[in-house]
Amino acid sequence: MTILAYEELQAKFERAALVDNAARTLAWDRRTLMPSGSGPTRAKIMSALRSVSVETLCDARVEALLDKAETDELANLTPWQAANLREMRRQWQHVAVVPPKLLNAIAELAGPTENEWERARRENDFPGFVEPLTKYLALQREASQIRGEAIGLTPYDALLDEHEPGMRCEILDPMFDDLAEFLPGLIKRVEAQQKTYRTLPLDGNFPENQQIELCNSLAKRIGFDFARGRIDQSVHPYTSNVPGDIRITTRFRTDDIREGVMATIHECGHAMYEAGLPSDWQFQPVGLARSGSLHESQALIFEMQAGRSGPFLRYLSHQLRQRFDKREPCWSDENVLRNYRRIGAGVNRVEADEVTYPLHIILRYRIERKLISGELNVVDLPEAWNAESRALLGIVPSTNAEGCLQDPHWVIGYIGYFPVYALGALTAAQLFAAARRAEPNLLPALAQGDFSLLRNWTHEHIHRWGSYPKTSEKIIERATGAPLSSAALRAHLTARYLTGSD
Amino acid sequence: MTILAYEELQAKFERAALVDNAARTLAWDRRTLMPSGSGPTRAKIMSALRSVSVETLCDARVEALLDKAETDELANLTPWQAANLREMRRQWQHVAVVPPKLLNAIAELAGPTENEWERARRENDFPGFVEPLTKYLALQREASQIRGEAIGLTPYDALLDEHEPGMRCEILDPMFDDLAEFLPGLIKRVEAQQKTYRTLPLDGNFPENQQIELCNSLAKRIGFDFARGRIDQSVHPYTSNVPGDIRITTRFRTDDIREGVMATIHECGHAMYEAGLPSDWQFQPVGLARSGSLHESQALIFEMQAGRSGPFLRYLSHQLRQRFDKREPCWSDENVLRNYRRIGAGVNRVEADEVTYPLHIILRYRIERKLISGELNVVDLPEAWNAESRALLGIVPSTNAEGCLQDPHWVIGYIGYFPVYALGALTAAQLFAAARRAEPNLLPALAQGDFSLLRNWTHEHIHRWGSYPKTSEKIIERATGAPLSSAALRAHLTARYLTGSD
Repeated sequence: MTILAYEELQAKFERAALVDNAARTLAWDRRTLMPSGSGPTRAKIMSALRSVSVETLCDARVEALLDKAETDELANLTPWQAANLREMRRQWQHVAVVPPKLLNAIAELAGPTENEWERARRENDFPGFVEPLTKYLALQREASQIRGEAIGLTPYDALLDEHEPGMRCEILDPMFDDLAEFLPGLIKRVEAQQKTYRTLPLDGNFPENQQIELCNSLAKRIGFDFARGRIDQSVHPYTSNVPGDIRITTRFRTDDIREGVMATIHECGHAMYEAGLPSDWQFQPVGLARSGSLHESQALIFEMQAGRSGPFLRYLSHQLRQRFDKREPCWSDENVLRNYRRIGAGVNRVEADEVTYPLHIILRYRIERKLISGELNVVDLPEAWNAESRALLGIVPSTNAEGCLQDPHWVIGYIGYFPVYALGALTAAQLFAAARRAEPNLLPALAQGDFSLLRNWTHEHIHRWGSYPKTSEKIIERATGAPLSSAALRAHLTARYLTGSD
Repeated sequence: MTILAYEELQAKFERAALVDNAARTLAWDRRTLMPSGSGPTRAKIMSALRSVSVETLCDARVEALLDKAETDELANLTPWQAANLREMRRQWQHVAVVPPKLLNAIAELAGPTENEWERARRENDFPGFVEPLTKYLALQREASQIRGEAIGLTPYDALLDEHEPGMRCEILDPMFDDLAEFLPGLIKRVEAQQKTYRTLPLDGNFPENQQIELCNSLAKRIGFDFARGRIDQSVHPYTSNVPGDIRITTRFRTDDIREGVMATIHECGHAMYEAGLPSDWQFQPVGLARSGSLHESQALIFEMQAGRSGPFLRYLSHQLRQRFDKREPCWSDENVLRNYRRIGAGVNRVEADEVTYPLHIILRYRIERKLISGELNVVDLPEAWNAESRALLGIVPSTNAEGCLQDPHWVIGYIGYFPVYALGALTAAQLFAAARRAEPNLLPALAQGDFSLLRNWTHEHIHRWGSYPKTSEKIIERATGAPLSSAALRAHLTARYLTGSD
């Protein structure tokens, strides 16, 4: 009945996770309050922590311990321990199969490539970026080939699998193709409808401290625990996931109230997932959030599904009128709702609305697949980008800076990550529909700013499971009674934007 | 001409230092803005980082590499590399000679003992603290014996040597005995003199934001670099020493202006030392500050020597009148100076003035030596404490909470550390006298709030040397032309407090 190999693995994976979490708090610090000149020494510190973590996982004994635990000890493990062992193998595989020399080469090139990208975007100089991106992608392709061979996947599926366990192009393609066919028509119809009435802008000045108060109050209603987390500001809102210390950042514009509120709700959704993970498995692989898309779905279920629902927008517009003492006609429930639901195809992903957003992702997915397979050369990237943009969104960016240079993902090693965003939207729609069926009072409660039914449902069906199920698909199927499909998102977008139901 | 062993050591020590520095930023975070409920997971993270750092230094190869570098490569090393190798051996010795089992036992008992101490102090329950302290000190004694045997020192000298390389009781005793004889008489005479005039309290309300502005302005004048550091607030002011990212904390009382200003100047002194260390040797042992007492001397040379000098106090009182719009008689130069120079024997170390402070240290030094040698049992600690207090300070604390339970040092593993504070005062006095001789305009410049002459002198003679000289004694002797003695502090205190010169 001994499980000595498993226990030794558990200690090693805990050590690596603790070091990763140290790095995560330092990354938060860097984005929020690190002095401007401290970058170079901080980079050295972060890189040392990453090395320690990788070396702990790739330590010569780990593979033998995994083999031994899987062969001799599996029968003695509890189901959660067995799932943890499965996740250990997974984590180990994604890191350990790539030769350290290649990993180091990628790490060394990452900084310079990102700098080149920043320069190229600033100066709209795609030609000058061809060589750096080509060199960097070549290394990433090599790593993805090695990973793919080790786990029996194509290179792109191997990249996808890292962020989204079990996800494959053959599962993605039908859903994405369906959206690519459905959404452009929907967008045209919604745009035509929205032209039939006037939406007044939400003019005004919104002092930062009052926005902070409003957002903190919303965060508390969602369930954010300020005793085990913080809310601060940074250029790009994000959530720092350290067990027991979850920090979200948001950003405010004093001339526009919309962004700060929704960025906060979005990050609170991420935070609720992290806070709800099984506390018995902190710092173990099985205690982690299941996947990138499931994480995104938790942000979107709060921000998009609940946060832009009619009942909640009515609660919010009341709050805005009260807190900022607004009485002008633009602050009517109806007009506030219209402001939060205005749609339109643009070239910018980050600024995209809920309806056009998936098309931005499908564009990137199609392009990055070809970059990894070798079908597309970097030099031909702008042409391919603009063609997809025309086909999917009906518009073409006027410069490469606004087009294929707009996102940092490819130069920070997030290749095969974009699909996560659209999968998150599909998942959020399907989960929210199930939650509404299970909790008929869910929507009415949002009219009082009461998120407790949604919070409890997501905790019960998503958060508390950590990575115990093998894929997010399993979690979704158990929670909603059906495999993930594009049906719920289609229904949701049609209902909200075309027929005007909540 | 190869120095392969040395280079491998350099990489290992850099790795350990980078991990230590990660822990240092996390410790700063814990003291300034970590959420209240995040303590337990943070403790696990910090403990993992400590283990990584210790294991990196104590890795099986390190001793052989040290031997090889010292035997075969010394002739090929530059003088700074050779000094670095010497410091590596020193660092390694203090950590590696103690069995990991004993180190772990100490680490495990540390938290609970500190909790017991907090409880005992709160409840004034010394009897209930006898057993926890006895157990904890027994482990610390065992470790100090092992260290002492390994480096040929008595257990207490081994403890001392960790914070203060090269320092021994036989060097300390004559200086401390001299102060113990000299100071009580001086205190009586100064107290008698101070009774002959009236010192008006510096009443008023001092809004925090205005205190922050004043302190930031003083910090800039001292030379604090806000692009590579921050100033925040915490319960106990301190300096977080991360190369390129030096963060000091201070604290403010809105009903008393004195503490915030002087705490800031004190920590700025520490920060100037760190910022001035040789940047070529960041993250290497030879690039570290030389010793605890030299560090304290840099805080005190700014806070006590310069900060309470007549010229600076006149600059400060002008600032206070201007910034807080004060016109009452208590805000005269003369009365502000008297406020900052008021002395009197008390039972509390932290609140002690410059003249009585060394006696608090001598008391603790005498007691902890006996605790480590075994001459004194914990159960007899209050009696011994009170007897020393009567002999040195002329007063006895009314409770153990205010007496032998007042400091955290012994329960957080800082045994053999107290002498550093008094050595720092001796050193600051001797260095400041030398700086004044070398720079006749140093004091007049302080009247304009200009610290540049002092900053340049300390950088030239102290900061930039890092740990290149083997001991702080060598640095002091080179900077002042004489070995450290009690003469300069005696002369300084007599001049400032009795004859009233600057």
